[in-house]
Amino acid sequence: MNKMRKIHGGVCAAEGFVAGATGCGIKTGKVMRDDLAVIFSEAAATAAATFTTNKVKAAPVRISAEHLRAGRIRAVVLNSGNANACTGATGLADARAMASATAKSLALKSSQVLVCSTGRIGVPMPMPLVLKGISAVKLAGAGSTKAAKAIMTSDTFAKEIALEVTTHDGNFRIGGLAKGAGMIDPNMATMLCVVTTDAIVPADALRKTLRESVEDSFNRITIDGDMSTNDTVILLANGASGISPSPGTFRSALDFITRALARMIVEDGEGVSRFVEVEVRRAASRADARKAAEAIANSTLVKCAWAGGDPNWGRILDAVGYSGARVKEAVTDIFYDALPVAVNGVVSRTPVKKLRQIAAKKAFRVTVDLKLGKASHVVWTTDLTEEYVRLNLGE
Amino acid sequence: MNKMRKIHGGVCAAEGFVAGATGCGIKTGKVMRDDLAVIFSEAAATAAATFTTNKVKAAPVRISAEHLRAGRIRAVVLNSGNANACTGATGLADARAMASATAKSLALKSSQVLVCSTGRIGVPMPMPLVLKGISAVKLAGAGSTKAAKAIMTSDTFAKEIALEVTTHDGNFRIGGLAKGAGMIDPNMATMLCVVTTDAIVPADALRKTLRESVEDSFNRITIDGDMSTNDTVILLANGASGISPSPGTFRSALDFITRALARMIVEDGEGVSRFVEVEVRRAASRADARKAAEAIANSTLVKCAWAGGDPNWGRILDAVGYSGARVKEAVTDIFYDALPVAVNGVVSRTPVKKLRQIAAKKAFRVTVDLKLGKASHVVWTTDLTEEYVRLNLGE
Repeated sequence: MNKMRKIHGGVCAAEGFVAGATGCGIKTGKVMRDDLAVIFSEAAATAAATFTTNKVKAAPVRISAEHLRAGRIRAVVLNSGNANACTGATGLADARAMASATAKSLALKSSQVLVCSTGRIGVPMPMPLVLKGISAVKLAGAGSTKAAKAIMTSDTFAKEIALEVTTHDGNFRIGGLAKGAGMIDPNMATMLCVVTTDAIVPADALRKTLRESVEDSFNRITIDGDMSTNDTVILLANGASGISPSPGTFRSALDFITRALARMIVEDGEGVSRFVEVEVRRAASRADARKAAEAIANSTLVKCAWAGGDPNWGRILDAVGYSGARVKEAVTDIFYDALPVAVNGVVSRTPVKKLRQIAAKKAFRVTVDLKLGKASHVVWTTDLTEEYVRLNLGE
Repeated sequence: MNKMRKIHGGVCAAEGFVAGATGCGIKTGKVMRDDLAVIFSEAAATAAATFTTNKVKAAPVRISAEHLRAGRIRAVVLNSGNANACTGATGLADARAMASATAKSLALKSSQVLVCSTGRIGVPMPMPLVLKGISAVKLAGAGSTKAAKAIMTSDTFAKEIALEVTTHDGNFRIGGLAKGAGMIDPNMATMLCVVTTDAIVPADALRKTLRESVEDSFNRITIDGDMSTNDTVILLANGASGISPSPGTFRSALDFITRALARMIVEDGEGVSRFVEVEVRRAASRADARKAAEAIANSTLVKCAWAGGDPNWGRILDAVGYSGARVKEAVTDIFYDALPVAVNGVVSRTPVKKLRQIAAKKAFRVTVDLKLGKASHVVWTTDLTEEYVRLNLGE
């Protein structure tokens, strides 16, 4: 039986990883805060990453994908304040230059460095400031929090988590940092995440496990249904612990990290006042369960009702109806937490007061039981508040 | 050459149609306003209708579809205050009873009456009030405006339009009324529309023309991306003018009516401060053009930017990127009215001040030129304001 224990240290919790950050003034030209971070593995690491599926991809996404194909990775350079997206050939050259400069200061090859950017789009990177920052970053074993703070945009707290996992062969560590899917002033930001581990994991297994774990965590969250050009999740495994965990053990640990960070991102969504877990059960197929859950989670009207503490079910059933999923209105049940709000497609006898108490909480669960099959899907989402609109009015 | 001239009279402009409305107190039990309307054709009319494609359909939609299959139609009964949706077997019986009562008071068969409802969902219809109202409605040749007002929910103005069309054989008339796709307190409302004409149009041609015209009007508007359980567009042709217009002439006249009403619905959307025409040009396929235009029009972030008067293009390009449409970032141009904001995927040289002037207008056009093919698609949409969220907070 393996044991997982939460520890401090974030992305530096695993042996052989150091991190650091500095301020370059990327957004405004003036250094107001840290906005550039570097994460470094003292030994070569196997690496895997998942990137946005948006066809409009930011320059750093393209360069990172290229470097990942080339082999082992030693460092990640990340910045906030500028997404280096929709910046054409200049943007690609700038992302390459960020990798080269990082490689130079750490005595690596460019292709051993991945690049992540978040912030304004359509604006060229202020490269002199960025390059100066890269050469100034100081790396430390306690640098994770500083790095997590440097990549925040509209995030209100730094997002970090780490675990020590005890196996019968010994212990390994895994930890991560992330920034959220908030959007702000006047451009979209991004979901970025870096996870490091000192476990020994072959590259193929690392890729497969990350893909599955992202599917069950970051791909199940939605705040506004918009998908960024920059979304990136990176996983580095440097083997420094000497431990080769079983696939199941490693998957469980990684899932704990990715789900914890995904949940933090949703909880810290812009203007969010409710965290809602939406589960669609007994759908005719997995695709149906997913379509229905995502339609509910992305419905403007459903989200507005939640902002008002309204235990609405008509808008939910309506969203299921247009989701494309098979639905039989006359057998569908809908719950807020454990209380039915609709039974077999019509209003339940649950006192509205009790349902309102649930919908007024900071976190609750909505379950839709389609009674058509065996498939289920869970999505984590939020309400849609006036504050969200205010934050995203643009310039 | 045919001539089209706007005339008064709405749904009663065509010969042989009368309408009326009364107050039943459907929503609150107290008669505060008219909430029930009847439109009557003095002669049997060929009829066509399009209904919501939501799999969760309100009772009146099911009953109307059934009656439409049975043959010629003489009357439509419509109410606001209660959508009779998600009401189970009771709801179906209530919708049938509304048709029967209307038929009885007009000496028709039940199957000659269509039923439309809009308002709260999941709440049983207060049938004694509704039936009393149906027997009290007085029909008149000048009753269109009264009927248009009776079916308003969160609409701020009654929506009517009519045309007289001159052909070489003589004149025919066509007119319509509609209510909007706003949503309010605490339930979803609906888009309802009835169009009447005294032209002679065979049933098959009527169905085909309506389907195509709805595709180019009501199916091109979006306010919040949510599709109601009750949406209905009805077209009645009673032939009273004795004129059989050519298919092209009739289509042009119908298009004028449906597009005018669709535009009114968007302009009267809840909390709307901008009317935006989104055109995607030179897409690789029609499906691509549509996907891209709809992704832009339904993007929460794009709509928030417009609310702020921000001539944003990064969020637009981002939405195109995740729409599923083929896109080559490096060749894509984006315009606000005639001014380029992005050229070949990067920011244009247009002064931001000029672009801001456009995005601050009450109505403007956004064009995305994909340069990949010949297909284009236009969607009419709105911004997303704090006022919209406030109106939809629910109970």
